[in-house]
This record gives sequence, C-alpha cells and structure tokens, in this order.
Amino acid sequence: MISMLSDFGCKDAYVAVMKGVMASIVPEETTCDITHAVPPQDVLAARFNLMMAYPYFPQGTVHLAVVDPGVGSARRAVAIQCASSFLVGPDNGLFSGVLQQERAIMAISLTNSQYWRVRQPSQTFHGRDIFAPVAAHLAKGVSIEALGDRIDPDTLITPDLPPFKNLSGSVQYIDGFGNVITNIPDHIVAGKSWQVTVNTSTQSPCFSSIKTYSDLPPQTIAALVGSHGFIEIACNRGNAASMLGVTIGATVQVSFLPGSD
Amino acid sequence: MISMLSDFGCKDAYVAVMKGVMASIVPEETTCDITHAVPPQDVLAARFNLMMAYPYFPQGTVHLAVVDPGVGSARRAVAIQCASSFLVGPDNGLFSGVLQQERAIMAISLTNSQYWRVRQPSQTFHGRDIFAPVAAHLAKGVSIEALGDRIDPDTLITPDLPPFKNLSGSVQYIDGFGNVITNIPDHIVAGKSWQVTVNTSTQSPCFSSIKTYSDLPPQTIAALVGSHGFIEIACNRGNAASMLGVTIGATVQVSFLPGSD
Amino acid sequence: MISMLSDFGCKDAYVAVMKGVMASIVPEETTCDITHAVPPQDVLAARFNLMMAYPYFPQGTVHLAVVDPGVGSARRAVAIQCASSFLVGPDNGLFSGVLQQERAIMAISLTNSQYWRVRQPSQTFHGRDIFAPVAAHLAKGVSIEALGDRIDPDTLITPDLPPFKNLSGSVQYIDGFGNVITNIPDHIVAGKSWQVTVNTSTQSPCFSSIKTYSDLPPQTIAALVGSHGFIEIACNRGNAASMLGVTIGATVQVSFLPGSD
Repeated sequence: MISMLSDFGCKDAYVAVMKGVMASIVPEETTCDITHAVPPQDVLAARFNLMMAYPYFPQGTVHLAVVDPGVGSARRAVAIQCASSFLVGPDNGLFSGVLQQERAIMAISLTNSQYWRVRQPSQTFHGRDIFAPVAAHLAKGVSIEALGDRIDPDTLITPDLPPFKNLSGSVQYIDGFGNVITNIPDHIVAGKSWQVTVNTSTQSPCFSSIKTYSDLPPQTIAALVGSHGFIEIACNRGNAASMLGVTIGATVQVSFLPGSD
Repeated sequence: MISMLSDFGCKDAYVAVMKGVMASIVPEETTCDITHAVPPQDVLAARFNLMMAYPYFPQGTVHLAVVDPGVGSARRAVAIQCASSFLVGPDNGLFSGVLQQERAIMAISLTNSQYWRVRQPSQTFHGRDIFAPVAAHLAKGVSIEALGDRIDPDTLITPDLPPFKNLSGSVQYIDGFGNVITNIPDHIVAGKSWQVTVNTSTQSPCFSSIKTYSDLPPQTIAALVGSHGFIEIACNRGNAASMLGVTIGATVQVSFLPGSD
Repeated sequence: MISMLSDFGCKDAYVAVMKGVMASIVPEETTCDITHAVPPQDVLAARFNLMMAYPYFPQGTVHLAVVDPGVGSARRAVAIQCASSFLVGPDNGLFSGVLQQERAIMAISLTNSQYWRVRQPSQTFHGRDIFAPVAAHLAKGVSIEALGDRIDPDTLITPDLPPFKNLSGSVQYIDGFGNVITNIPDHIVAGKSWQVTVNTSTQSPCFSSIKTYSDLPPQTIAALVGSHGFIEIACNRGNAASMLGVTIGATVQVSFLPGSD
C-alpha cells in the first residue's frame, strides 16, 4: 500500500497526476489518501498528520508525503526506511514526527534519476517527477539503496518545535473540529486528577479534565486525553481553538490537583 | 466492498487512520468514500446521504458510518444486517433512512471486544477502535452474530423528523449545490401538474414544476422531481437554499393544478 | 482504471453513487478521482484539469467527466476513443483540451440505452444513469461502437477560448494555490530571457521570469514555466491570482529581453 499526504488540495488535478504516474509503474498497488488539505506549505501540520496516521497502516506501507516549500531549491529529496514502513518526500522536517517514534534504519538522498519519471524534472512539481515514481518503485520492490546515496539519518532536518519539559508543553496541531492538540503525552496524567492552563494572546484560562466530549454541556471547553495519545483541549459541539483564539505553538501547562499522586 | 461516511472532514488524518486499521485486517478489500464532509455531528445529514447512496452499491457491501456526537457515552454501537448490505456505526438515527427502505434482518450491539482494535478503546475515537475493525471483520466474513448481543431492531433510534402526510412534507436535506430536497416522494406527483409552497422564516413562495434544471432561465427557482426520488426545489446556476433562506425542517406543501388528476 | 472528474463536490453522496453503480458492473476495476471540486458548471476549469491529468494515466484508462450544465437538455452524451484513452461525458467542450493533444479516433453518441442503468434516466443525474454505467461497460471491454451512433468528431463542441497567437495569450486556469496558468506553451521561451505582461481590470504589471518558486522572496510575484508546460504567474507563499485580481480569460503578453535569441 502507498499512503499519500500533501498540501495540493482537492481543487486541482495534482494529486491525480501523482496517482496516474504511480499506477503506470505499479498498477496493482492500492493508494490511500491521508490528507491533501494540509494548509499550503505548513510542514508542521503535515508532520503531525503523518505521525498520527502511520502506525495504523500495514507493515511495509510506503508513505509518500509532499509538502515542499523548497521545491526546486537545494533541499534534499529523501527516502527513509523505518521498522514499519518507508517514507518518501522532501527533507524539511516532514518526517521528524514519525522518526521520534521509530528510528530510521536507512536514509537515502534520491539522486538516481533512473527511478524518476524524467531525467529533467520540473522545477516546481517533484511530487510528479521524483517522489511519486520513487514511491511506486519502492512499492514494486526496488531496493531503497538503489534510489541514490546513503546519508546519515542524524542529518535529516527536524523542525523548531519546543519540546515538552517540566510539565510545560505547547500546541502542536489544531484539527478540523477545532480540537487543540498539545505535545503533552497522556502517560503524564495516567491515574491522576489534572487540569491544564493554556496561554492565548489575551488570557490564560485553566480547564479541568473530563473523559469524553459528551461528558461536557454543549459549547463548554475542557481538557481530555485525545485519541492521538496527547492531551487536548476540546469543546462539545463547538470549536475550541477559535473560541479561545489559540494557535500552534501556544504554551500549555499541566498541573495536578491536591491529593492526586 | 466497504463504504465509509463520517463528519471527520478531509483536513485531518482521521479517515485515513480508519482505512489503515481496515487494511491491516482485510488488505484486499476496496473502500469507497460516500462523504466525510457531513456537517459536524449532523446525524440527519448523514442519514440522508447514506439513504441516498446505499442502493447503488453491490450486494453485501458493508456501510461504515461514523457521525457520533455521543461517542464515549452510553449510546450503543451497532451492526445491522439488511437484505442488501450491512450497516456499522453508532445507534443514533444514522441508519433510520436505510431502515425505512429495507427491514433490518438482524441487529447486534457491538459488545464483543475480540473484534475491536484494542480492549480499552479511546473514549473519543470509536471509529478507529471499534467501528472500523468491526466493519473489516464483517467484510472478511465474520458472522454478524459473533460481534456481540442481539438486540431488537425496533429499539434502534429513529430521528425526530416530521413525516410526509396530507400533501405536507418538510425539507430533509440541502445539498452542496443548494438544492432543497424534501421528503415528498415523487410518485405523489406522477402524471400530474403540480406546484409547491415552501415556508421560510419570512415568506411562503410558491414554485411551479419543471422537468430539468436547464428548462429554467439562469438564477430562476422552480420545483422538480430530483434524482433521489423526492421533490426538490432548485435554481438553475444558483443556490436555491441560500436565495430562499430555507433550512432543514422547513415545511413544504404540494398542490395540484386545476384539471390535473 | 477509470478516472473521475466532476463538479459534484465532496459534501454529498453523488460521486459515491456513481462509484457504486460502476462497482456493481465491474467490481474489480480501480477508480481514481481527478477532482470533484470543479466550480459548479465551470466547463473550462473541468477541461483544463482533464487535459492536465490524462497524459499521466495508464494506456486504456477510461476518463469519466461530468460537468454538465445542460443535463436533461438536447446536448449529446458522448464516448470518445483516443490513442491513449477513452473519454465519457457530455458534449459541451469538456474534452476539447484533451482533443487538442490527441486526435479522436472515434466518437459515439450514447444512444444505446442497453448500457444505461435504466431505460428512463433521471432528468438531472445522467452521471449516475448514463455516464457511469457506460464508463464501467467500456472498462469491462464493451466495444465503444456498441454504445450508440457514430458521430463526426469534428462536430464535438469546442469552447470559446482565445488561442495563443503573436506572443499574446490568455489565462486558462487559476489553480488552488492561486497560480495563474496561461495558454502560452513553454517551448516559446526555451533558452531565452523573457518576461510577461498581464492585463487586469485596473493595471498591466510586468513580471520577469524565474526558475522555481523558492527563487523568489516570500510574497513576491514572478513568471515561470509551470509543471503543466504552460507559462504561469505565481507568488512564493502567496496567492498570485487574488493579489493581482486576475481571472480566467485575462490577456497575457510574452516579450523577450534585449540580447535574448
């Protein structure tokens, strides 16, 4: 299986072009869209969605991810082999979420034009001319080492996200429902009574924790353990992010109630 | 085949996560998206889209539908067997449109955690942890009776929609073109000359009937027999719902012209 | 493989209904969405997306395209055989982009109701009742000649687009990133130093050419050879079309710099 993630949207044929290219190389392979509605050039949003989705795919899935503000520049095009899957796309931090969960076994700079669609790729659409054909060849069984030059996985770009430390984290994603997803892992609060304080531009409200959305009266905001394994701030039948005016990067503090241990 | 319907949108990876879960159980199965753009938690819109789409799918299709405001609460998770297909999702009225067309042969409360993804499902994402794996196991050939406890199909939730009666119906859906779809079945007007009156918050305009959109001058509104088998109010090259200010639930009256029989 | 393009959007089940109809006829066939977000009834946008995508699909692909303002009127329903693929949809100019690249080998008016879903199709949804079943039967191996009456390919509708002539062209599409795509083919500027002047309603700015988006400072506009093989006007990390106020049909003039040959 080949999964696909991009910021190409659904208005134009760009995604279909990549699917056509892949079907021409490996017609029997199934593709699965993770999302193509990543905000344009938003590498952090792409990183989160890929990190969230990849563990649920079958062993050996090729994840093709193209959010590529640096297309045509000197940024590297890469393929990465992990324990569970392969990653194909630009080296700009897109894969750093997955690589926090799984060590890169091997990383390759995609320099072998034999596996590109054409020897002279477009300056603006490497998804079509480099990444899609490489992903299709990987899915077809081509060895990752054939795709180019080995590079040190430690040189792969990682984004500038403040890490979770001393019970203080930050907002790493806002989903389509307006749920505010932090980078605070759920094991921190396991078995405890807890609350969170979020810093918006104008205020620092504190929210107590609940178990599920429906425990809340409509239009009320609270914190809970989200399905991604991170603490999130959500509103029952409402959009928490826009109600609070919270954006990615806002700091979030977790605290425990007296008597909690 | 497994069809999928949800309110998860296309921005996030939630739908892909469910597809990954299913592909891990039944890799050879094809999925088909009915829509994931149901307005958040709008069970009536979900109900209409599933009712509209299911008759066109191959015999034995598993329809996985997750619009689930009550996730994590005591609402039941169900699988239903009909003559043509299987239905999997929350018991909140989502399936009542289909069940108006086809009798439920068997209904099961999904209590057997052996067919869930994990024994302790997330409180907020039963799509991933219960519904998707159950749909995949059904598609793989697991007997519906193995999935949990038999329940009386008459106890399945039905939504609070005013029925069509005495030539008076109501708006049951507004589609993406702004077509206003009533619950007045087309056989009522077969062979007759007819018109409809719709009650908006400010007016009660009456529209005569035409055969197809292109019979109308641009930006003009009229009534016609829609492709779903219900009477609809539409505008040629315009959005009838927003021009009229009509919303779901508005009452619509059909009347026949003198000499019509 | 069957590709699909329409203006049905992703909110409603219309696309899924067509997929269900096709899966019932040819269950083993793969479908690939080109886009369903063509602006309602925008035949020119549909034409461009199909023209852009079709060359990347495997030989023999059936392209099912339904943007059909004339549904239910006397406009013809057609199937067309080209060297690379089959085209199925309304005869309204939708296929004229493809047919500029590839000669029509045969064109058929879809008059044989044996290959429709029902003998009495809906007046408003030929996608479901005529086009989807015909595309599925073609993919299944039915001869195109069996589908109806041969028509002269020269009688197929072509849209009213001003052609590129004397270094003067026009805007033929604006993509989801706001890139302004002209109908000026890239071979015109090969090996030369060039610039373009675009006429908006209020101004006629001139833009020099660059190689790729990332050569530009953010929020800056320039011209470049786009991935489609046409000259486009783009903005790095911005929406060129809305910044300029350019719409489809605006005239664009290319000129060469002194010393360029």
